Amino acid sequence: MSSDDFYAIIPAGGVGTRLWPLSRKGRPKFLYDLLGSGRTMIQSTFDRLARVCGPEHVVVSTGEAHVDAVREQLPELGDDNIFPEPVARDSTAAIALATAVLAHRHGPQIVVGSFAADHVIRDRDAFAECVRQATAAARSGYITTIGIAASRPSTAFGYIHQGHSLAQEILDAPSARIVQSFVEKPDSATAQAYLQTGEYRWNAGMFVMRADVLLDSLERYQPDIFSAITAIAEAWDQGASKRSAAVKQYWYGLEKIAFDYAIAEPLSAAGGVAVVPGGFGWDDIGDFNSLAALLPSSNRQNIKVLGNQDDVVFLDSAGDVVAAQAGRTVALLGVDDMVVIDTPDALLVAPRARSQEVKKMVSKLSGLGRDEIL
Amino acid sequence: MSSDDFYAIIPAGGVGTRLWPLSRKGRPKFLYDLLGSGRTMIQSTFDRLARVCGPEHVVVSTGEAHVDAVREQLPELGDDNIFPEPVARDSTAAIALATAVLAHRHGPQIVVGSFAADHVIRDRDAFAECVRQATAAARSGYITTIGIAASRPSTAFGYIHQGHSLAQEILDAPSARIVQSFVEKPDSATAQAYLQTGEYRWNAGMFVMRADVLLDSLERYQPDIFSAITAIAEAWDQGASKRSAAVKQYWYGLEKIAFDYAIAEPLSAAGGVAVVPGGFGWDDIGDFNSLAALLPSSNRQNIKVLGNQDDVVFLDSAGDVVAAQAGRTVALLGVDDMVVIDTPDALLVAPRARSQEVKKMVSKLSGLGRDEIL
Repeated sequence: MSSDDFYAIIPAGGVGTRLWPLSRKGRPKFLYDLLGSGRTMIQSTFDRLARVCGPEHVVVSTGEAHVDAVREQLPELGDDNIFPEPVARDSTAAIALATAVLAHRHGPQIVVGSFAADHVIRDRDAFAECVRQATAAARSGYITTIGIAASRPSTAFGYIHQGHSLAQEILDAPSARIVQSFVEKPDSATAQAYLQTGEYRWNAGMFVMRADVLLDSLERYQPDIFSAITAIAEAWDQGASKRSAAVKQYWYGLEKIAFDYAIAEPLSAAGGVAVVPGGFGWDDIGDFNSLAALLPSSNRQNIKVLGNQDDVVFLDSAGDVVAAQAGRTVALLGVDDMVVIDTPDALLVAPRARSQEVKKMVSKLSGLGRDEIL
Repeated sequence: MSSDDFYAIIPAGGVGTRLWPLSRKGRPKFLYDLLGSGRTMIQSTFDRLARVCGPEHVVVSTGEAHVDAVREQLPELGDDNIFPEPVARDSTAAIALATAVLAHRHGPQIVVGSFAADHVIRDRDAFAECVRQATAAARSGYITTIGIAASRPSTAFGYIHQGHSLAQEILDAPSARIVQSFVEKPDSATAQAYLQTGEYRWNAGMFVMRADVLLDSLERYQPDIFSAITAIAEAWDQGASKRSAAVKQYWYGLEKIAFDYAIAEPLSAAGGVAVVPGGFGWDDIGDFNSLAALLPSSNRQNIKVLGNQDDVVFLDSAGDVVAAQAGRTVALLGVDDMVVIDTPDALLVAPRARSQEVKKMVSKLSGLGRDEIL
């Protein structure tokens, strides 16, 4: 079954504070090749989706400050397919605007899918098949999410509690199930309990839905956002001046709210959300510890190097995560399980175990007014 | 009593391998302001000695590669007062050549003193008084060393075992004593035992002696070095071509041997060496741990910073030694008792406890052919 009516939206937002000084406000993690794969996070995301619906059906929503970098990294991205945001207004506004504009261009029956710009996905074919089933469920009127097979009792992700199968109802989506509820990031014990039931999956914030279904839900649950977005979308393709006037008038006042809270959770309570299980090897690189888990180790000491391996020289050291990004020699003597991030204007040293706290350092630097390195 | 007949020799040699990457082969530690005092090690040494005998009586012996840097740092140093070495031949050759040339210029009865370029001395007046007594003992014919009051059972220094007082014999040196023997760097238990006797002092390699006494001892204990040095010294002030011819003919073949072994030890066995106690606050910055002990701490966390304090930002960290020499922000999160040396082309991270092993890292880098950063 073809997916000519499917459009992929990439909201390219998150700064990745816990990956400082690698990730910066002015150059967020989605612009980096964090895995040394040869393609940046957003390039890999684009490639993955272009295989599903063709490059001309992929759009990117990002901050005005990142538009040039995105265009540079994605030359295949059409001029009309980039949605610059003057200020960030979270995922609901980003997804809704792109959807409303695409509906104007291609009709309200199109199916749109939203996929973060900075996720790691290993098996592209399994991902494509998963999106195909999600698209089928979306055509049947469900806002459909992709539930990631939980490989560990992570406390870093929200969970999806899945219910009965929708296989009878949606012939083209044999593994689709109804979503009973979305649950917040749990503590470790709760996460463990979730895994034992086999009914819970990670929420990766991927949503696939018909444009009209999304806009109807938006009107129902977020009428203010709906009317503002509708006004902007109507002006969007009416020339630069009309677009900027509408943006100036309506965008800034939009409520900052995540799509999960604004739409997915209330709609799931009404039985309107489906989930398709995803088993394609997914991860969200939240901090240097999780980055390390994804990097290949080229040595017995299990030292993970991001950058030029030859720049890192170690003696009696093991388990370190080193980013050699400044073209300098990084010499580690008797250093175990540490994070050493070497960039041209900032160096971070911390134990791997404290990777989550890197954001505290960023807050401190911000408090010190060191914005030029944040 | 005047010291018009006293000349100070500064052998500026040691690379300071354990202070890499701060200290480099091409730019040894004596060229750095390691204590953030505003003066480099060799500048402080020069200042200290100039107060004793005047700047025109201070000479420096150093590698040809460092001559320009030394001239730049010591504009007061006379052109005739720098002795360039085409290759290093250890302290006996360096001290003997400077002494022989000075004897030619000013007569064999002058007193010369040799003082390393990279030692830390706190009390300049106590040092000056000590040198004055050593000069008096030297005039009486003794090769006189300065025995540093041992403040701890260090295993990093050699020791001087002092014997009976020479106060009766040398009226101007009331605290001079005979040297029974020089002893090698001891183990910790032996060092502890030495301290308990009260008869041992640290050997800082400072020697004060009459030029003729040194040259006679050299002829007696190191006849080969004596004849080569005599030949070079005779040609030294006979014009550039004669000097370089003599250096080319005699210098390269000189035996590499420290002054302690070549002269001081055999002569002490013959009762020809005196010691004057030095209590002026002395240290030799051997590694980052000893450097840390000498640096002021500007914070409660006892983090020692060499460079711009503002470049170092720490959170939940304590006891670190940080050199911020690259003009970058160095951010430490949860890092205790570590050495972080940040230079433009090389970064070193190691526990303070392993400071002594930095030379192993330098050996490894040398083995990897990274000479450009050594």
